[in-house]
Amino acid sequence: MNNSTICAISTPPGIGGIAVIRVSGADAFAICDSIFVPARKDISISLAESHKLFYGEIRENENLIDEVVVGIFRNPHSFTGEDVVEISCHASPYIQQQILKLLIDKGCKLAKPGEFTQRAFMNGKMDLAQAEAVADLIASDSAASHRMAMNQMRGGFSNELTQLRTQLLNFVSLIELELDFSEEDVEFADRAQLMELATDIDQHITTLSESFRVGNVLKNGIPVALIGETNVGKSTLLNLLLKEEKAIVSDIHGTTRDTIEDIVNIRGISFRFIDTAGIRKTTDTIESMGIERTFQKIEQASIVLWILDCTQLSDHMEWLTSQIEKKSEGKKVIMIFNKIDKITPEENEVLTDIFSEFECERIFISAKQKINIKELEDALVRASQIPEIKPGDVVVSNIRHYEALQHAQAAIQRVIQGLNAGISGDFLSRDIRECMHYLGEITGQISNDEVLGNIFEKFCIGK
Amino acid sequence: MNNSTICAISTPPGIGGIAVIRVSGADAFAICDSIFVPARKDISISLAESHKLFYGEIRENENLIDEVVVGIFRNPHSFTGEDVVEISCHASPYIQQQILKLLIDKGCKLAKPGEFTQRAFMNGKMDLAQAEAVADLIASDSAASHRMAMNQMRGGFSNELTQLRTQLLNFVSLIELELDFSEEDVEFADRAQLMELATDIDQHITTLSESFRVGNVLKNGIPVALIGETNVGKSTLLNLLLKEEKAIVSDIHGTTRDTIEDIVNIRGISFRFIDTAGIRKTTDTIESMGIERTFQKIEQASIVLWILDCTQLSDHMEWLTSQIEKKSEGKKVIMIFNKIDKITPEENEVLTDIFSEFECERIFISAKQKINIKELEDALVRASQIPEIKPGDVVVSNIRHYEALQHAQAAIQRVIQGLNAGISGDFLSRDIRECMHYLGEITGQISNDEVLGNIFEKFCIGK
Repeated sequence: MNNSTICAISTPPGIGGIAVIRVSGADAFAICDSIFVPARKDISISLAESHKLFYGEIRENENLIDEVVVGIFRNPHSFTGEDVVEISCHASPYIQQQILKLLIDKGCKLAKPGEFTQRAFMNGKMDLAQAEAVADLIASDSAASHRMAMNQMRGGFSNELTQLRTQLLNFVSLIELELDFSEEDVEFADRAQLMELATDIDQHITTLSESFRVGNVLKNGIPVALIGETNVGKSTLLNLLLKEEKAIVSDIHGTTRDTIEDIVNIRGISFRFIDTAGIRKTTDTIESMGIERTFQKIEQASIVLWILDCTQLSDHMEWLTSQIEKKSEGKKVIMIFNKIDKITPEENEVLTDIFSEFECERIFISAKQKINIKELEDALVRASQIPEIKPGDVVVSNIRHYEALQHAQAAIQRVIQGLNAGISGDFLSRDIRECMHYLGEITGQISNDEVLGNIFEKFCIGK
Repeated sequence: MNNSTICAISTPPGIGGIAVIRVSGADAFAICDSIFVPARKDISISLAESHKLFYGEIRENENLIDEVVVGIFRNPHSFTGEDVVEISCHASPYIQQQILKLLIDKGCKLAKPGEFTQRAFMNGKMDLAQAEAVADLIASDSAASHRMAMNQMRGGFSNELTQLRTQLLNFVSLIELELDFSEEDVEFADRAQLMELATDIDQHITTLSESFRVGNVLKNGIPVALIGETNVGKSTLLNLLLKEEKAIVSDIHGTTRDTIEDIVNIRGISFRFIDTAGIRKTTDTIESMGIERTFQKIEQASIVLWILDCTQLSDHMEWLTSQIEKKSEGKKVIMIFNKIDKITPEENEVLTDIFSEFECERIFISAKQKINIKELEDALVRASQIPEIKPGDVVVSNIRHYEALQHAQAAIQRVIQGLNAGISGDFLSRDIRECMHYLGEITGQISNDEVLGNIFEKFCIGK
């Protein structure tokens, strides 16, 4: 694979000021020299120092395609570990396409999604967990998911796993040595020490696996179900939460964030809002009116926002409260009394006490008048129960890693049971090897083409 | 204005492998040094050579925002002519936003649309026509519009105008010198030579103005109206033309081209298809069925594709032919007989002769079976009557330039009339100055804030 030289547009698709086309491989310099005419006649990409920028033209014979700046990275001092040229051209789709065509004519292959990162992995620039973190980093849309991906990309997770694996390797080598001397009944590997290590690893994996709850919601957003009867102001509130965020984002640089319409980033945490059909008030057949579907959506959520109209409570309050209480077990429920601007302080007090046996936070807001929205956001952040992620904290956010950890834990627990039962070294060795195998799968010390294919095909082209 | 240091994301918005944030201004190096921690501890951006790349981290205090590569361009050797840093980060919208926020915290201003190019103009790196060509280049979506913008960016147009202006300046100086000696009745400026120059300029401007027809359609696409009765295969054909092009584009890199759904690029020329409501066959009230609106759309087109069904001609062929002939004066009409796969060669011959007094090209195709589509494309290219644009050809494509040329021509024609009428030097001088003024407006030798504002606000942010 690594014999070919690959190219791709690495910047986001579309129109802009600058686009960057990345070329990586053994022939990157020669190919780029064949299409790049430097402004200074005395230089060439092949002979230039690493980490230099040159201004010049991309030409196809006599045809000037663009004025560009090329950046040169000599192996191994590049992202992929290979010779790399980054061509900064005008971000016209036409020009990008022409330069790409020209590179392909000159012998480049179009890079597959994630192929640059895959090469970085193959060339030992990063391990598999770090490579996966690159994709997570690019997709990160909140302070927390960014921090988590960054920690993983920096190798914190990988280092921990490699340490565990090295300790296991020491033990398994000694045990396998014993097997060579099996007739002599020696014990090179101290069983008490091995027990200590196995227990330690078991606990360690438990901690990592538990972090997956946090990692997963940080990566995908904390699911929040909005429920309530019709006309309580559910969509006004949702729009308000969405719009405030969008305004912040678009003030800065007009990203494509507005396509992710139901994700709101509050104080660095992503909340994924699950809208539900409004429950109809004052109807006798309330159960049949899609309420079951609404309750099903609650199941997907970690937090339930129950929105009520201060001025007109449901005829079914008691029934609704009992239903929501039943369906929300283990979830955080926040009762939001909307339209607070329309009621008197006395009415407010009555509402505060309503169904007080139903334990949950109660917030009084006006979505229309934007009263107490900050308090609602604070309540959401509290309810998210997401601990702050610090630089260096290891949080598992990848389902592949989580599954591998589960397998590794099963194996290490068999080692513990085996030690307790005093089983023979060959059985212990098999289970330790299995644990090592699964830990190695995470970092890519153990990998196969199919696994790699599955991982990198999810990357964007150009990365 | 130029005292501030500006920053913006220069790559297209959205998610991708790499994004580039550009920082330009007197404090660009100092500001970037305050947030960039180089991997090699012995370097700093402020002290580095121009045209160098450094790997390192963007940090906000202890918080690692991203691993980046920074490129350094020392004034005047940069796009803007100022000190410039280009930060290549991971193209996560979140990271881009965080770096931008950080730069702004450290004293950068967010760049206005086109502000980098405006600074390049202000600092004498390019004139106004060249600056405008940067925007055209980025928007170019065909070989022809790309070539046209590139020629303009390279300064061919500007050079011509500057030459004309210099010649006029020589004359007007001599004439104005005469005015100082007005009591002595001297004539420093040779009137015959001036007449020759003025006539030359008049012709030159005529040539430039005439090129605007070509420049305008190249820039916006040649308008092609598709007309025909219902069920003749109009939309199958349109989809076919659009889809083939889209397939080519998306094979290359998946641009956002698919949003421009009605522009097709054939052999380097953009055609803008104007779809019309199908005319209903076999109805007595055919005139009332929106046919007037269809005919109005013909007026916007340069080329009319009249699509017919080989197997079932209209009951109103004669009437339709006469109507289309009347409405298409001065336009190219191509009759397209679709569904050729459904008829015999004998029937084909009959159709070839049909209404032969109506002069236009006739092409037999099958949109469904994809027969003769290449021939149809050839016919479109022929009908476009677009001359090939060669490197260095000057083509006016900007309505602002066209209008300035019209004003300059009116003034130079008054000079010619004045010379014929033997009017006095002060009147000649006024008209020559006016002509110079309008020529100078194109290149920006004459400009004002309002004009500049109008020009650059149409640019994308980051350019």
